[in-house]
Amino acid sequence: MIRIGIYGLGKISRRVIQGVLSSNNACLYAVCSSSIEKANIFKKEYQAEKAYDNYERMLEDRNLDLVYICTPNYLHTKHIQIALSYRKHVVCEKPMCVSTKELNDCFDYAKRQNCFLMEAHKTVFTPLNQKLFEMISNEEFGEIKSIDAQYATRLTEQISDWHFSRPGSGCMFDIGVYPICYANRMAKSSIFRVSRFQDEALIEYENGCVAHIATSWDVDMENTAHIYGTKGSVSCKNFWKNTEAAVNGSKITVVQESDFTGEIEHACTCIENGMIESPVMSRKASLEILKVIGV
Amino acid sequence: MIRIGIYGLGKISRRVIQGVLSSNNACLYAVCSSSIEKANIFKKEYQAEKAYDNYERMLEDRNLDLVYICTPNYLHTKHIQIALSYRKHVVCEKPMCVSTKELNDCFDYAKRQNCFLMEAHKTVFTPLNQKLFEMISNEEFGEIKSIDAQYATRLTEQISDWHFSRPGSGCMFDIGVYPICYANRMAKSSIFRVSRFQDEALIEYENGCVAHIATSWDVDMENTAHIYGTKGSVSCKNFWKNTEAAVNGSKITVVQESDFTGEIEHACTCIENGMIESPVMSRKASLEILKVIGV
Repeated sequence: MIRIGIYGLGKISRRVIQGVLSSNNACLYAVCSSSIEKANIFKKEYQAEKAYDNYERMLEDRNLDLVYICTPNYLHTKHIQIALSYRKHVVCEKPMCVSTKELNDCFDYAKRQNCFLMEAHKTVFTPLNQKLFEMISNEEFGEIKSIDAQYATRLTEQISDWHFSRPGSGCMFDIGVYPICYANRMAKSSIFRVSRFQDEALIEYENGCVAHIATSWDVDMENTAHIYGTKGSVSCKNFWKNTEAAVNGSKITVVQESDFTGEIEHACTCIENGMIESPVMSRKASLEILKVIGV
Repeated sequence: MIRIGIYGLGKISRRVIQGVLSSNNACLYAVCSSSIEKANIFKKEYQAEKAYDNYERMLEDRNLDLVYICTPNYLHTKHIQIALSYRKHVVCEKPMCVSTKELNDCFDYAKRQNCFLMEAHKTVFTPLNQKLFEMISNEEFGEIKSIDAQYATRLTEQISDWHFSRPGSGCMFDIGVYPICYANRMAKSSIFRVSRFQDEALIEYENGCVAHIATSWDVDMENTAHIYGTKGSVSCKNFWKNTEAAVNGSKITVVQESDFTGEIEHACTCIENGMIESPVMSRKASLEILKVIGV
């Protein structure tokens, strides 16, 4: 069992913790926030072994294997590097870094420290999307020619200031990374070229597939992903967490406890096998996402 | 009543004729094909006054007001110019021309001859799309931020050689012009920039709206248009001919006899009012379509 410490106890951390609690090779070991009161509430609520109000104190804990970073985007690089300096494995919420340079620096450092590092993109690890990827790999839809994925929602609730004003802010870095990551995965190819106009992008892959991704905080969209192949197609609403999709017009369903479990189990399996990089959510995969965002 | 002569009696011409027969200000006057047998069949079937097997003979007919050109794309420019030389008004099937230069040459010539010239894009003249345009103009959906329209169908039946091998061939010039024309119209703005990757394009308009258009002969798509505004949205399957759409999730319907009637009535009204260019499907609107195709 990989012992996980969560750093940053905002909204997303509760969902990550559910994923940890549902996984078969990870346990929630510690929680850490600048507020010890908050950390203690989480410790009690989720029965973690430790609560910390200081990041480095948590990292000094020899029982901790992996830090899952849930802090604001602009702090990710700093927090990854501190964790790596303590030789802890790291999974970091998306966007892991806000520039190609930062991203390469982090992966280079992880390699030197012989630590596992992965950007947390649950979308590619949900049971449904793993199944769809397998079907695509088996050419069940023929050649994939076109992908369209969007995640847009009109902002009705307050979100933090850093979503608007810090490096790694803006819609594309927030809900936009879901369709990007999904399209890049399902296309099964490297990016050949990309055009980004505002919060939409058109991507052409080296294998000839073309993807369109759209995101917005100004409008509500259908938030459906479409994959079009020469022999069939997939349609899936809320593709980043869904357990059912229309495959050639017929519904398929999968079992899923938490949409984060697949990602966490994958990271832990990699670590158990002595890997320092995921073969799925690799450095290259993270770089390809930044290529679409254009940073 | 504007007396119309149809030149080219292929598959599309039957639908155009239905549009003429349903219109309130046009009548089917003549039909013309290289085969007099075919022309006579059409004359009898649709009760045209004249059947011709020679284009210039038809154009010499003083009773003819307007030529509707339904010949293959690569012949359009030639056939427009011959008609204009006889001072006949012209509506030409899309793509009217296969390059910006040809298009400007045709509109310049029409102006010199004082004749009406319009590219036949029924899509923007269907009752539904006229209604949606009016709703957009009245800002019923707030600011239009994003449009997505596609028309793709896996080719299962034989289509003519010129669809593959002549200027103006290819999917983008065929079913691709429907989503392009639709997006350009509904965006209510000039194009600021465009990226085309294979048979898909991303368009940014000067007003900030972004549109994605997709077309294909290799895959089946949903063929649905989406218009997303800050206060609401539209979704419409087969948007180039449909009589119903989902507006903010509720169905609206319109009456329509033929999907070509709106276009024909519009052209004839322009002519009756002494205009030589449509204010809707203008030279500029045709140029904007070619801008997306990239010719």
